[in-house]
Amino acid sequence: MICGRTPDELIRDIEGFHGFVAPGLVIGAFMVDLAREHIGQNTEADAVVETRHCLPDAVQILTPCTVGNGWLKIADLDKFALTLYDRHTFAGFRVWLDLNKAKAHPNVYNWFMGLVSKKDLPKEILIPAIFDAGRDILSVKPVTVRAEFAKREKKSKIAVCPACNEAYAAAQGTPCLACQGKDYYHTGS
Amino acid sequence: MICGRTPDELIRDIEGFHGFVAPGLVIGAFMVDLAREHIGQNTEADAVVETRHCLPDAVQILTPCTVGNGWLKIADLDKFALTLYDRHTFAGFRVWLDLNKAKAHPNVYNWFMGLVSKKDLPKEILIPAIFDAGRDILSVKPVTVRAEFAKREKKSKIAVCPACNEAYAAAQGTPCLACQGKDYYHTGS
Repeated sequence: MICGRTPDELIRDIEGFHGFVAPGLVIGAFMVDLAREHIGQNTEADAVVETRHCLPDAVQILTPCTVGNGWLKIADLDKFALTLYDRHTFAGFRVWLDLNKAKAHPNVYNWFMGLVSKKDLPKEILIPAIFDAGRDILSVKPVTVRAEFAKREKKSKIAVCPACNEAYAAAQGTPCLACQGKDYYHTGS
Repeated sequence: MICGRTPDELIRDIEGFHGFVAPGLVIGAFMVDLAREHIGQNTEADAVVETRHCLPDAVQILTPCTVGNGWLKIADLDKFALTLYDRHTFAGFRVWLDLNKAKAHPNVYNWFMGLVSKKDLPKEILIPAIFDAGRDILSVKPVTVRAEFAKREKKSKIAVCPACNEAYAAAQGTPCLACQGKDYYHTGS
């Protein structure tokens, strides 16, 4: 069982949320499972993932932590690793894909390192190889998350932008960031 | 119906994923519903939310877009707004909570602007007020998402850090960002 699921149930839950079975998400499930076991079932745990790719969804599917509820944070380190930590003491466990161990599972290693094309390593071979590897390719160590990173944000003071008349975080200054030219769109289609 | 759900089904799905019924998530559901209607059911849409609070989960629950699959992006503008856009043309619709309209729904307005305590406006009153307001507090406009924001990231080249022996994005330089001191934890419990 991985996070209380059979492999078929895990595949179904990944497809339902993520849209397709990404190999990194299956590895991520084993990572969450290992971290969860170390921290214990009775600890209220927050989570950090070290990449925006795949891993956030493993945590969101398999734990109560989500981006929107703030219990999952993304550290933009672009590494395939995650940490579950006690939300009161900040003590927890970091799990990562250990390259030295992964070398014993060439299909997984070659996919992870981008050494093989999708054509030469189709999912029908890769996904079973990941289930076969399971925790064998992972390492875990105790860590303590830095307080400034772990602590939950307080809601910032709200202002109304004089330019767009929308509410925004007052700390941005006046006008709001979007009206300062930092928006991601232009108006009109 | 909101995104194909009755209010009870919506509440159940929010609780299941987010852990509790956050008022912002119920408003977010009406926002996704309105944007979805404008862009049409047949358009493959990516999403942007303009805050990390609540709204990412509305999109993740009610659309195929997630943080982990990269179809949902977060623009850190700290505004209560979201955009669904055609992933090929980048044309879409931005929906935001319109303060002028919200004033006609004092409970929703006062909660949103932080003018009332949880004690004075319990969820038993606030959540029905949000369902009652529905789309009346929202505005929508056509936008085109800037190409540099909309385009999907290519996977970056992978390097192995000589300090920690983990894989990371080569663009970070050597050693990896974490070993440059930008990690979020210290080792040990």
